[in-house]
Amino acid sequence: MDFGQSDRARDLLERLRAFIATEIVPVEQRLRAARSEPHAQRRDSSADQAWAVSPEFRELQRKAREHGLWNLFLPDPELGAGLSNVEYAALAEEMGRSIFASAVFNCDAPDTGNMEVLYHYGSDAQKQRWLRPLLDGEIRSAFCMTEPDVASSDATNMAATAVVEGSEVVLNGRKWWSTGVGHPDCKILIFMGLTDPDAHRYQRHSMVLVPIDTPGVRIERMLPAMGFYDEPGGHGEVSFTNVRLPLDAIIAGPGRGFEIAQGRLGPGRIHHCMRLVGLAEQTLELACRRGLERVAFGKPLVNLGGNRERIADARIAINQLRLLVLHAAWLLDTQGLAGARSAVSEIKVAAPRVVQQIADFAIQIHGGAGLSDDFPLSGAWTAARALRLADGPDEVHQGLVARFELGKYN
Amino acid sequence: MDFGQSDRARDLLERLRAFIATEIVPVEQRLRAARSEPHAQRRDSSADQAWAVSPEFRELQRKAREHGLWNLFLPDPELGAGLSNVEYAALAEEMGRSIFASAVFNCDAPDTGNMEVLYHYGSDAQKQRWLRPLLDGEIRSAFCMTEPDVASSDATNMAATAVVEGSEVVLNGRKWWSTGVGHPDCKILIFMGLTDPDAHRYQRHSMVLVPIDTPGVRIERMLPAMGFYDEPGGHGEVSFTNVRLPLDAIIAGPGRGFEIAQGRLGPGRIHHCMRLVGLAEQTLELACRRGLERVAFGKPLVNLGGNRERIADARIAINQLRLLVLHAAWLLDTQGLAGARSAVSEIKVAAPRVVQQIADFAIQIHGGAGLSDDFPLSGAWTAARALRLADGPDEVHQGLVARFELGKYN
Amino acid sequence: MDFGQSDRARDLLERLRAFIATEIVPVEQRLRAARSEPHAQRRDSSADQAWAVSPEFRELQRKAREHGLWNLFLPDPELGAGLSNVEYAALAEEMGRSIFASAVFNCDAPDTGNMEVLYHYGSDAQKQRWLRPLLDGEIRSAFCMTEPDVASSDATNMAATAVVEGSEVVLNGRKWWSTGVGHPDCKILIFMGLTDPDAHRYQRHSMVLVPIDTPGVRIERMLPAMGFYDEPGGHGEVSFTNVRLPLDAIIAGPGRGFEIAQGRLGPGRIHHCMRLVGLAEQTLELACRRGLERVAFGKPLVNLGGNRERIADARIAINQLRLLVLHAAWLLDTQGLAGARSAVSEIKVAAPRVVQQIADFAIQIHGGAGLSDDFPLSGAWTAARALRLADGPDEVHQGLVARFELGKYN
Amino acid sequence: MDFGQSDRARDLLERLRAFIATEIVPVEQRLRAARSEPHAQRRDSSADQAWAVSPEFRELQRKAREHGLWNLFLPDPELGAGLSNVEYAALAEEMGRSIFASAVFNCDAPDTGNMEVLYHYGSDAQKQRWLRPLLDGEIRSAFCMTEPDVASSDATNMAATAVVEGSEVVLNGRKWWSTGVGHPDCKILIFMGLTDPDAHRYQRHSMVLVPIDTPGVRIERMLPAMGFYDEPGGHGEVSFTNVRLPLDAIIAGPGRGFEIAQGRLGPGRIHHCMRLVGLAEQTLELACRRGLERVAFGKPLVNLGGNRERIADARIAINQLRLLVLHAAWLLDTQGLAGARSAVSEIKVAAPRVVQQIADFAIQIHGGAGLSDDFPLSGAWTAARALRLADGPDEVHQGLVARFELGKYN
Repeated sequence: MDFGQSDRARDLLERLRAFIATEIVPVEQRLRAARSEPHAQRRDSSADQAWAVSPEFRELQRKAREHGLWNLFLPDPELGAGLSNVEYAALAEEMGRSIFASAVFNCDAPDTGNMEVLYHYGSDAQKQRWLRPLLDGEIRSAFCMTEPDVASSDATNMAATAVVEGSEVVLNGRKWWSTGVGHPDCKILIFMGLTDPDAHRYQRHSMVLVPIDTPGVRIERMLPAMGFYDEPGGHGEVSFTNVRLPLDAIIAGPGRGFEIAQGRLGPGRIHHCMRLVGLAEQTLELACRRGLERVAFGKPLVNLGGNRERIADARIAINQLRLLVLHAAWLLDTQGLAGARSAVSEIKVAAPRVVQQIADFAIQIHGGAGLSDDFPLSGAWTAARALRLADGPDEVHQGLVARFELGKYN
Repeated sequence: MDFGQSDRARDLLERLRAFIATEIVPVEQRLRAARSEPHAQRRDSSADQAWAVSPEFRELQRKAREHGLWNLFLPDPELGAGLSNVEYAALAEEMGRSIFASAVFNCDAPDTGNMEVLYHYGSDAQKQRWLRPLLDGEIRSAFCMTEPDVASSDATNMAATAVVEGSEVVLNGRKWWSTGVGHPDCKILIFMGLTDPDAHRYQRHSMVLVPIDTPGVRIERMLPAMGFYDEPGGHGEVSFTNVRLPLDAIIAGPGRGFEIAQGRLGPGRIHHCMRLVGLAEQTLELACRRGLERVAFGKPLVNLGGNRERIADARIAINQLRLLVLHAAWLLDTQGLAGARSAVSEIKVAAPRVVQQIADFAIQIHGGAGLSDDFPLSGAWTAARALRLADGPDEVHQGLVARFELGKYN
Repeated sequence: MDFGQSDRARDLLERLRAFIATEIVPVEQRLRAARSEPHAQRRDSSADQAWAVSPEFRELQRKAREHGLWNLFLPDPELGAGLSNVEYAALAEEMGRSIFASAVFNCDAPDTGNMEVLYHYGSDAQKQRWLRPLLDGEIRSAFCMTEPDVASSDATNMAATAVVEGSEVVLNGRKWWSTGVGHPDCKILIFMGLTDPDAHRYQRHSMVLVPIDTPGVRIERMLPAMGFYDEPGGHGEVSFTNVRLPLDAIIAGPGRGFEIAQGRLGPGRIHHCMRLVGLAEQTLELACRRGLERVAFGKPLVNLGGNRERIADARIAINQLRLLVLHAAWLLDTQGLAGARSAVSEIKVAAPRVVQQIADFAIQIHGGAGLSDDFPLSGAWTAARALRLADGPDEVHQGLVARFELGKYN
Repeated sequence: MDFGQSDRARDLLERLRAFIATEIVPVEQRLRAARSEPHAQRRDSSADQAWAVSPEFRELQRKAREHGLWNLFLPDPELGAGLSNVEYAALAEEMGRSIFASAVFNCDAPDTGNMEVLYHYGSDAQKQRWLRPLLDGEIRSAFCMTEPDVASSDATNMAATAVVEGSEVVLNGRKWWSTGVGHPDCKILIFMGLTDPDAHRYQRHSMVLVPIDTPGVRIERMLPAMGFYDEPGGHGEVSFTNVRLPLDAIIAGPGRGFEIAQGRLGPGRIHHCMRLVGLAEQTLELACRRGLERVAFGKPLVNLGGNRERIADARIAINQLRLLVLHAAWLLDTQGLAGARSAVSEIKVAAPRVVQQIADFAIQIHGGAGLSDDFPLSGAWTAARALRLADGPDEVHQGLVARFELGKYN
């Protein structure tokens, strides 16, 4: 048993850390400060600006790529960094400490998952048209799965359709929480819909590549998540009305939607759970620093009441969580998704809880400042809360873990 | 022992309920729907509109006053409804079920507390100038106490000053979380500052009435609370730079700030805790309705996993909380603040926890919709979270309760 | 709304408190000390002694009766104190602070419930033979309902039978957690069994009065609850093998078992929940006293870490719980069991949790002493834990509360 | 990063598992069943028997030794198995699933810790006289540290003395929770007392080897822990009155008590935390099995309410805990105690909570049976609860973890 990382991962981690510290952190402070502007401006805020990408950000991306810190998530050594899940996990944690880092390194959801789908299941033509510019950071993408009108926790409820008519596939339906559709660079959507209601329940659906400007596609509105629009990508409600595409827009052919969705989820969950570990670390650091600086009743806040107990519990929770995610990554690396299914659901349940708990404490120790946008704490809390629903609510994953557990005795 | 309400309270409650159902609920739906507008509009949203008061709302206020549902919080039978705290509590709960109701009935914080301050401590001139139009709903007010640069949980940290210079009082300092300063009708601020650092620790501070347009007063920015600006009142950061006012702007004379602050808090906490009871009820109702309507895995959501246990626990928590708040109100009515101090801190700790817990469950059972603004759930969660800090963080109130408890044995 | 108690209840409460303080508390200390005897004695402990009743205890009962503090639970003004549930609740709380008090005042479970059954449903002959000596404290009783071989949370699982054969009823089956069967004065058991499997599901069972020395009744063993035998009453596993009794041993006639069981439960739950409130108060008092006396790291324990927060939370929890139980009692008094069903289940869920939580804290602040029998803390924890199962597990009561809640919207 | 175990550890684990399954489990069932005997016997139970060691048990030990499953904990390859902490951890987990296993393999606390003390710090004579027979399982030992009259969480409170007088050391004081002193084979105590109050605070105390039959040593009583005496070792209160021993009874010389205590704790905590992981696994297995077998309301219990969610949470908690303990063991192996101090305190806090939580659930799903001694659940709960105090209460370890955490920013 060896808990140490490989030399390759350690080296990349060092370089990533240095880049974030030198290049991103200073910008981050300024960008966050810019958000909460004086009263007057706020009132006639040109909201448009929030939905744009600044030249400064594009410059950061250029530099990152120059430094070889680009597409680190992709296990392919030519197109990406060729890392194992365990190796990339350490990098994902580091990126999770910063709001912008994942995007700077072209390692941001939902693009990572979409690129993996294209990498594993896409045709050469699909790769050429969509994977290439995504890998180059020229365009961005969205994933359209969840629906407003049914309980999407049960995937068989899906009402949207992707019907094959001759040489075309015709899409109808309404999706929401399509993260990233608000981004000015978002050019391609992956849509999932019902193709053949009579097929085996896991062979009924198809995934279709939909250029965002296809007639019939309409972004109905952008959705706030717990008050946040998460610009510039945002989360959209998107309607598809008689959207017609050639058959070769279907990824891997009709009826393979579930299979692809499954494959997409394993590494993706490792990524976002490790980012949550990083977010938890950053949140705890902020809590500790604030608690050491501010004084009340003659003592630094950390010395009041149960604050040290909460700090200890946070440390314990983070360390446990990191190990759980790394172990899941190791299972994925050594046994494939089949051997990691329970583990991947376990981390999906565990990670947001830890961040939510620590963010709650950090907000409390920051007082009113914790509620404001002056610190990334309300955002951390919100991200965690949303992830208890996104990609399957906790309860669905608990159900899967329990089924595996009870299966031992049945 | 009798848990029934008086005839007077029951009658008002019936009328209030009818008014809310008939007049407010329909409008409420429309107003909330208007908030999340189509994508295009959102991008160039004229944020100004959110900070205005619609004619529709003013009409509601007029009708409410006509129906005798106005200033219900004020124990004075001529100026208000002349209710005891226990009686008003039932009405406050009802108002808590609706975002707009308190304001419609001119029973909204922070105006209620500010009116009480003026009612109990104001000079005749102060009452004439400020209490009268507040009671008439012509103007609104804000309370400027918390400061960004110190841990305001310890009131002795207060750095803002209200120095007496000859016939004037001169204010300097920076306040934030001044709720309501963004409201177009906000005309008057109550400012608390240090007057005499050498006096007894509870006689050092003064409360000063500051017209919002006094030179030296500047709203630096509006603050989002967990992502929400809570328009049109909002929460502001306000700087005071050499603000000069005549001595008679001080409420009850220099050095009485703490005394007034104490008196302001008892009924105010009863009010907001009972509103939280109402909010908890509304939140649970939404959870139940959604859980009965939506189906996953062949069952209504309420029949899945631990949902019924959570509903039961919510019911138990609400019932306990309501009784605790009513009991505190009864102590305040029968023994005054002196006999209700621990009780008032107990409800301050207990109430937001209950709402936060139930809102978390309600969000979860709503799925993605729970995160959006389509339901008042993210708002309920946020309100509860903010109230664990507003008006003294939980820990300060727990400290007071523990001191009373240990005092029994010392 | 009036949270004050009646004069009658206040007077009895004063007298009860005085009696407990003067007569019981000193004895209690001695009796508890006697339990943990030196090593040598323990090894050859004559366990018999623990299952006896000391003359000292009988003398206490005599005195209590002399002082008019006897059968206080019985609403009948001639046979008992004639108190409402709300009034008796205050007395039950006081008794709950002491392990022995309920028994001293002849207000101990399961006798109280059994006496109520006989009072409400017994024939004159049954009352003469069993109620009279129970009211006089000459004998004690047990209630045989739960079964070891089925999930008794679902009452329809009950496997024991009470078959009518001519002029006799014949009992067969195995019961456990029959509290009190180990008591030397235990003379009568109330047995519940299936009489007519074809009747309506609530009319299938009968309750039968079984003298403990009836042939076929066998106490198989006494059961420890979380390590405690709770002598001298204890909890027994009892087998019934072809136990034959005349038909008039059936209470209220065949098929009325469920009806009687329902009626038995309302007041009984108020009683034990109020005793738990008293136990919670005593537990918190012990925690506060220990925390003020003992010093570590230069401070009294109450000033370390989150201890004051825990004390505050305990105070809040107790006050909420007391009000919830009193409100349930008031509903029972004013609306009968029909109007109090949800309330009675709510307190059943809420009360043990509070005691368990506070006992856990009190144990922790007592250090090793908290685990020992030197303080009634391990006993308090155990009592609370057992009550989360006894008389229906939490989950069954949560289910009932949720059904009522959802019923509002269906 | 590699989460796999070494071949050596895997081999020993296989053999251990086989031995436990074949030799111990059957005996265990019988021994536990023998504990709760019929009513009659219980009443005149010869408690003596519980404090004896059965020939059957000694035979098991003989066999275990024969199979090379003996002293596995000792890192010395000649005297023990020569395993690293990470390797032994897997074995400790397995032993934790069975109440008797640790003792069968001579790997039971407190003997393991005491043997380690002698191994690392004992003189040749001390090793000859005490380590040898302990390694052979001929005698057992106890550790006398905690005191009844002070808050022992603060080690500087220690009141017992070990005063050097000429060629002798004289012991006075009272210790309790001396685990194992009731065992018939217990021959040697390790006593810690104050030697030089003027020395540096970590050089004031000495550890002294005290044969149990030394004049002045008296076992005052055996202590029940949450109702359990934990025979045959038990937990004793022991007084030391002018106990005189030659100077060479002091381990490593006067003043080195703290140093030795520190060294004793690292591996010991790994051991007991991994045993707790095993106990948690066994507890969850029992809960799953019961929940699958028993039926209520027409469904297996696992399908009712939140039971599957609780099973999933238990699985997540156990997996996290195991990884945290293994990681701490790895730190201890690779960086020594200095690099593992926070980690060792983290597992000390985390492990008992997990077991307590799962045991609580398992008890609930077992119904009344869960409270009884028919299942090892009340015992599991009790063991976990006691370990939140034993070897330093949670709060002390949380304090250490927080100090390390805050140290990063100070």
